[in-house]
Amino acid sequence: MLEDTIAAVGPPDEAAMTAARQLQARLTKPAGSLGDLEELSVRLAGLAGSCPPPVPGSAAVAIFAGDHGVHAQRVSPWPQEVTGQMVGNFLAGGAVVNAFARQAGASMTVIDVGVASPLPVADPVNAVGVGDPDGALGRATGSGIPRLISAPIRRGTRDMTVTAALTREEARAAVEVGIDIAGELIAAGAGILLTGDMGIANTTPAAALIAAFTGVDAAEATGRGTGVDDPTYQHKIEVVRAALRRHSPDPADPLGVLAAVGGLEHAALTGFVLGAAARRVPVLLDGVIAGSAALAAAAFAPDCVAAIVAGHRSAEPGAAVALRQLGLTPLIDLGLRLGEGTGALLALPVVTGAVRVLHEVATFDSAGVAEK
Amino acid sequence: MLEDTIAAVGPPDEAAMTAARQLQARLTKPAGSLGDLEELSVRLAGLAGSCPPPVPGSAAVAIFAGDHGVHAQRVSPWPQEVTGQMVGNFLAGGAVVNAFARQAGASMTVIDVGVASPLPVADPVNAVGVGDPDGALGRATGSGIPRLISAPIRRGTRDMTVTAALTREEARAAVEVGIDIAGELIAAGAGILLTGDMGIANTTPAAALIAAFTGVDAAEATGRGTGVDDPTYQHKIEVVRAALRRHSPDPADPLGVLAAVGGLEHAALTGFVLGAAARRVPVLLDGVIAGSAALAAAAFAPDCVAAIVAGHRSAEPGAAVALRQLGLTPLIDLGLRLGEGTGALLALPVVTGAVRVLHEVATFDSAGVAEK
Repeated sequence: MLEDTIAAVGPPDEAAMTAARQLQARLTKPAGSLGDLEELSVRLAGLAGSCPPPVPGSAAVAIFAGDHGVHAQRVSPWPQEVTGQMVGNFLAGGAVVNAFARQAGASMTVIDVGVASPLPVADPVNAVGVGDPDGALGRATGSGIPRLISAPIRRGTRDMTVTAALTREEARAAVEVGIDIAGELIAAGAGILLTGDMGIANTTPAAALIAAFTGVDAAEATGRGTGVDDPTYQHKIEVVRAALRRHSPDPADPLGVLAAVGGLEHAALTGFVLGAAARRVPVLLDGVIAGSAALAAAAFAPDCVAAIVAGHRSAEPGAAVALRQLGLTPLIDLGLRLGEGTGALLALPVVTGAVRVLHEVATFDSAGVAEK
Repeated sequence: MLEDTIAAVGPPDEAAMTAARQLQARLTKPAGSLGDLEELSVRLAGLAGSCPPPVPGSAAVAIFAGDHGVHAQRVSPWPQEVTGQMVGNFLAGGAVVNAFARQAGASMTVIDVGVASPLPVADPVNAVGVGDPDGALGRATGSGIPRLISAPIRRGTRDMTVTAALTREEARAAVEVGIDIAGELIAAGAGILLTGDMGIANTTPAAALIAAFTGVDAAEATGRGTGVDDPTYQHKIEVVRAALRRHSPDPADPLGVLAAVGGLEHAALTGFVLGAAARRVPVLLDGVIAGSAALAAAAFAPDCVAAIVAGHRSAEPGAAVALRQLGLTPLIDLGLRLGEGTGALLALPVVTGAVRVLHEVATFDSAGVAEK
């Protein structure tokens, strides 16, 4: 399924992009006065292959949750149990991502791809029926209460400083969970997908992935995550460096990179991005975890970048490195470093607004407004 | 009425701000991980005098429209008639601000404070009844179709390079229209006010106001507005410089500054900001016109800054100068330079989200999540 998905990812439609640029020039506003929103609308037209592209009415945020063997290296001050506890908080509607999803009217789906601690009984993967009114979108839109899908590949990765975090088969299985979820959410009506993640210590594999795919030094890709102190931060850089030295991951082999230094949620998000791109549906990235996954997705299928919108500039330095390599400009820059999908949800109205302009704004001719 | 409003503007409530900081620290997220949203929530608690502050459910954007005598100096390539034509476009629902207001569920009110060309017959000022279900909020919320209020002080300002743009009495009358509108929208239920403006050539008086209130050179305060070419831009700087030289406006006399080099919409927005601050309701600024008005409002009543949220960083350089002087950080930075209220509307979900966090997010204790 991974290979089919990669094969389905195609380049943007140049004719639709040209049509969107021409339409922007006729709308009742000075040329260029909508700044970055104009190019965003052009990119979304290219992805959809139509001008105007569809308004992304139904939005779906998918939060992939997993644990990390590298937590044993003391890269985070938080106990590993917090991953599962925060999943419980999501299910109870009490996290920031719930508040933002309620506000945005987005559905929420939490996918356990490898949480180490026990979670509530949940629906198995593939339980979301195509168009099912009780499915993820029907049940959860705007309520801020997510559906939980249980799709654990293993109960947390191995410690990447000791051995590969995942086998190639495990990495592939996680990628394919992400492809599945993207497909099911789109089949259920989502017009835009948003990435979310939860996993104590997951900024460490994200930094290793970003260093591996971009070639920057571990120090440039590594950040303070939840806000570690100076000694922990220096140690975290060394942990990332040690993992890269041990595995020498080859950026031309994204599955190998994900297996060596990735995480289960990183791999699943890679598939989520590919799944959206293959169906020509935009995917709005959250922060550094999503950025590392997008690099892996682009290594599998470079054209998938046409489907990606960078939601925000995370305070994590690796996120900016990833976006630079992808050639993407973030929409929101508020110093967020929470993850969960919060930055993507804050950016959603900007994306919707950019598209609505092409649908709703009058032209100089139609409105009887003089031009300069 | 201006003096009463100024007297009603007070400092933020320190106890509410402290309570908001303490609440942020107990919510289920790493400390500081919501970046600028945390301080924003603290500021809004200080303004409201309560923690959490009210969620700004009903939002109202007010678009003050006026024309400018300085248009005769050829500072804009657009004909003056476009001001009235764009008001017509607003009323027909066809402008970008209409699309964004529909999306945000904000009511729209257009106030003619001095458009030179004839407009449709409209309600006189004060027609918005307190709590009137047919008033501005009841009729227009989310429809994207504004109510038009007719409150012209004069049919455009005088040319500030020749004489004062307004008499002191005219400037005061325009400020008081803005105070009225703010009061009426709040009485009708608005929990947050958004600034909008329309007026061909209005970035020229905005630049003069910003230079007068901050002391920067005309070249630093002046931008390209709708996108003028190099010769027009250089000429525009000279026009601003000439007006400042002619009037030597005293920044300690804001009414005198508004009269000498202001515009009717700038003066009305000054009152709009003061009216919101006097009622301790947040006011979300759009771009450079709003920034210049906020400087005038702060000159009248420095504490009014506690009520101001900077919506976005306009591409106009004067906007950044104004926000720096006010000590405000914009929420959105997308290169917009359209005006109308578009940047404020894009920022509205960020403000609402910042407040909802304080209402809806669980604490570590209540959610049973371990701390680091």
